[in-house]
Amino acid sequence: MIQSPYQTISSRAIWQSQWYNLRQDEIRTPDGTHGTYTLVEHPGAVWVVPVTADGKIVLEWQYRYTVQDWCWEVPAGGLQPGITPEEMARRELSEEIGGTAAQLEHIGWFYTMNGIGTEVAHIFLATGVELGEWRREPTEIMETRQFPIAEALRMAHAGEITDGPSALALLLCEPYLQPLVG
Amino acid sequence: MIQSPYQTISSRAIWQSQWYNLRQDEIRTPDGTHGTYTLVEHPGAVWVVPVTADGKIVLEWQYRYTVQDWCWEVPAGGLQPGITPEEMARRELSEEIGGTAAQLEHIGWFYTMNGIGTEVAHIFLATGVELGEWRREPTEIMETRQFPIAEALRMAHAGEITDGPSALALLLCEPYLQPLVG
Repeated sequence: MIQSPYQTISSRAIWQSQWYNLRQDEIRTPDGTHGTYTLVEHPGAVWVVPVTADGKIVLEWQYRYTVQDWCWEVPAGGLQPGITPEEMARRELSEEIGGTAAQLEHIGWFYTMNGIGTEVAHIFLATGVELGEWRREPTEIMETRQFPIAEALRMAHAGEITDGPSALALLLCEPYLQPLVG
Repeated sequence: MIQSPYQTISSRAIWQSQWYNLRQDEIRTPDGTHGTYTLVEHPGAVWVVPVTADGKIVLEWQYRYTVQDWCWEVPAGGLQPGITPEEMARRELSEEIGGTAAQLEHIGWFYTMNGIGTEVAHIFLATGVELGEWRREPTEIMETRQFPIAEALRMAHAGEITDGPSALALLLCEPYLQPLVG
């Protein structure tokens, strides 16, 4: 645990949901300034790069209500109590693309929005993925498409994967993907 | 403008601030399901990769209250009304590291959290940066350090830049940085 240069004086919930909360803290900064810091409390999430047995990357073309736009993404989802990131990675693979992975490897993690929220993105590489029947929620509006590994990496480098965490997930997996390029 | 597959029935503010708002929409999904979608309305932000005249990348080692952790980052900040992303990039360079850039190039953009919010990250590459006096806010607790370009890119690839948008900013700038590697 890192010693915080801030002091938290009090904390109150502004809004709560099953996905994330909004919390407002009264704080004191190191120079003695009093203020409030309002933050998005998020349980964390997984992003999973799926590679099929014949060496294709599966991307989702998903409509996002927040930004009123379609985005290329990899399967992803928020964590839930009592479920490990690895279990959630397998669940999202199954629910969003009907995928089962022969191997699932935790590649790394990063904060998605450390200025305003607590979310940690856990990145997984799923290989030997077999595709089957998906079971999406009503708010998951998407199509999927398979890309050669080199093409998916080119899209990430070129800024065509406009979901930032998905793009970074692909690029963090790049050293593990290069040996799989046919 | 893309035709939305969702219908927005009503919209209300849950919480508002100068940095972001929390908004709750009553929506209808394409299959007719009614529901609410609560989202973080964010004006967008800039992340700026600063390269000094002698070819070093300036990174910030910043304490983030949200995650109670120190992170390697590039200068960044939220947009404000009436200020273009390019103007904000120059302002953040100046305020956070006392930097003035000879050239500033818009490299790309991505959504930082399209599942829960609207934030767009605008990525800039600042070159020929001269460093001077910074003017940080009380909540900006950081030190800065200069790294060889190759080392900063290695850190981003290796997952050591734990602010995700900063890591992706560095990797999107990579094709422009490679010619500058000494």
